[in-house]
Amino acid sequence: MTNFTFNNPTRIVFGKDAEHQAGQETAPYAKKVLLHFGGGSVVKSGLLDRVRASLKAAGVEAVELGGVKPNPRVTLVREGIELCRKNGIGFVLAVGGGSVIDSAKAIAVGVPYTGDVWDFYEYTASPAKALDVGVILTIPAAGSESSSSSVISNEELQLKRGLTSELLRPRFALMNPVLTCTLPAYQTACGAADIMAHIMERYFTNTRDVDFTDRLCEAGLRTIIRNVPLALASPDDYAARAEIMWVGSVAHNDLFGTGREGDWGSHSIEHEISAIYDVAHGAGLAVVFPAWMRHVYGNDVARFVQFATRVWGVENDPFNPERTALAGINALEAFFRSIGLPVRLSEMDVPADRIEEMALKCTQKGKGTTGNFVKLDSKAVASILRSAV
Amino acid sequence: MTNFTFNNPTRIVFGKDAEHQAGQETAPYAKKVLLHFGGGSVVKSGLLDRVRASLKAAGVEAVELGGVKPNPRVTLVREGIELCRKNGIGFVLAVGGGSVIDSAKAIAVGVPYTGDVWDFYEYTASPAKALDVGVILTIPAAGSESSSSSVISNEELQLKRGLTSELLRPRFALMNPVLTCTLPAYQTACGAADIMAHIMERYFTNTRDVDFTDRLCEAGLRTIIRNVPLALASPDDYAARAEIMWVGSVAHNDLFGTGREGDWGSHSIEHEISAIYDVAHGAGLAVVFPAWMRHVYGNDVARFVQFATRVWGVENDPFNPERTALAGINALEAFFRSIGLPVRLSEMDVPADRIEEMALKCTQKGKGTTGNFVKLDSKAVASILRSAV
Repeated sequence: MTNFTFNNPTRIVFGKDAEHQAGQETAPYAKKVLLHFGGGSVVKSGLLDRVRASLKAAGVEAVELGGVKPNPRVTLVREGIELCRKNGIGFVLAVGGGSVIDSAKAIAVGVPYTGDVWDFYEYTASPAKALDVGVILTIPAAGSESSSSSVISNEELQLKRGLTSELLRPRFALMNPVLTCTLPAYQTACGAADIMAHIMERYFTNTRDVDFTDRLCEAGLRTIIRNVPLALASPDDYAARAEIMWVGSVAHNDLFGTGREGDWGSHSIEHEISAIYDVAHGAGLAVVFPAWMRHVYGNDVARFVQFATRVWGVENDPFNPERTALAGINALEAFFRSIGLPVRLSEMDVPADRIEEMALKCTQKGKGTTGNFVKLDSKAVASILRSAV
Repeated sequence: MTNFTFNNPTRIVFGKDAEHQAGQETAPYAKKVLLHFGGGSVVKSGLLDRVRASLKAAGVEAVELGGVKPNPRVTLVREGIELCRKNGIGFVLAVGGGSVIDSAKAIAVGVPYTGDVWDFYEYTASPAKALDVGVILTIPAAGSESSSSSVISNEELQLKRGLTSELLRPRFALMNPVLTCTLPAYQTACGAADIMAHIMERYFTNTRDVDFTDRLCEAGLRTIIRNVPLALASPDDYAARAEIMWVGSVAHNDLFGTGREGDWGSHSIEHEISAIYDVAHGAGLAVVFPAWMRHVYGNDVARFVQFATRVWGVENDPFNPERTALAGINALEAFFRSIGLPVRLSEMDVPADRIEEMALKCTQKGKGTTGNFVKLDSKAVASILRSAV
């Protein structure tokens, strides 16, 4: 176990009708907020109206900015920054899933900065302060509601980049599992893959003596594996929806990664896919992760044996650890398939002709590497992507 | 799963030499602190000197109050309150284990209160504010370093009572596993029992659909079961000590209890034992818990089957769930024995002659009940205690 600091102050309000507390949770921070959302479902479902009413009842004025799309764009973020500055707004309230929250975080960190917010995502500047952010979560997936990270796409540059800073952690997250019962099956499945990926990025590590966090990761994975099929079979299954939603947050609030180095290679590879092709992040991860695993498992067969036996219930074959390890990877891929996710690039209509380009982009133009469990150069990334065609 | 609010803002600084950050972590809160500790080991080991040096280097003045004993006394708490008031102190820094931290919390909540601090522990008053508290942890057991609770003994009344309030959560906890390598074997084992008890109090619930938190609890228990024997066999095993220390905090920071009702009957029964006999809290719990389990398992045999199979690796006997359930309870008792803990009152030199008195005291003079998984009246408590003679 490595030395670590852990501090997650996000206040979680979880359960039925949690969104009705929007006003009372926001009021201590600000009397005027940017209400940030996507569109479509939060409007149609009446959620936005309930949030508006709650804010109004608490005496909080809302300036609205909708229109966030999946893989949120820096152009809308810039618009939000201007809106906040013009209206003297000191708080951003996100209503939506990871894209909306990440966009809200980018706005929050951009408002007090004199340069262009994209600087933070290109690592040419580091944020010194940010507005406070609050969240009403509608999609369990990204874990952004209590994480310190934000991922934004620059459509001009066809880049998708992540920023991590303690300044980005939301003050509160209101989480009502009922809101997730109307998610389409595909989106539920994509969310599940994203949650599992957040756990697996932490699970596959070279850090030794990480017993407790290994087991916490396994607890999260097993809960997803059990409950996602239940939610897909019965979309209104509150219990299953609640389990998925709570795992989604805890999976990415940093607890599971305490005292261990994470990998994050698969995330960086997937970001290059969705930067170009605009596929769902979770679907991209379902394609990349098994391919990544088959490429790297030789680095620590024992860890993959543990993954296979403890997470997937694969019978341990002490005479053939490699077979056990591979059975676990196959089980993961079969699970993704069983919940309706693609496991090949072609199944997402992603052609093979820009693989070299993506491999270069996620390895600092081929000069660097991505990932920690195994450091992957551009050749290795390209080979993983080719194996997933 | 029930609705819940979860908010644990305690900042954890974990790893080798963590105590050297005492000054820099404290300085943002106060320039003058009460340095609160027990005595003996923290002095002899040089820890107190290192903390003093760190505070001094950060320009923080320390007024010292040592002498905290296990099952911390309200008389010393009152002394600490006076000392803080006289010196205009706004922060209490605890160096020690659960007793020292609980004593520090009681001081912190007593200073701004005009009445006697014991009122809070008798529930005749509710705290409205408290000084900030910081912790340098030396014993993994109570989980008080990031919990919202404090347990204090009133030696005059032979009462031991707990207060829970969000005001009591420490601002930070510095956790260096090396400090725990010198703990005597018995104290290591008592700490383990306390940690397991915190988890089991949450695990045994009547709340349905608590899949994720069940698995988190099991992760914590299995980590303790694996690592405590390692630490007892090799006291300097840093990896094992680190696992135990981190589980000890997470076990009681409220995450494992999110969305479910806890029991806490065994804790309340044990408090009556240690209020009179001054036995180690963890030892008392090792005696009470298996006895409690044998009394209540019929309330939900399936839950005890899950405990037996998932936590203890007992083979499931689908034709005889009761046998499987009992095998799990036996495994817990055998584990406690194997790490050198008592499992009978007589092994702690606690006689049977005041059982009725203890049973009455923990059930509001026999007019109420204790516990939630099964509500125990004074007769039931007496019966559990008699079964543990």
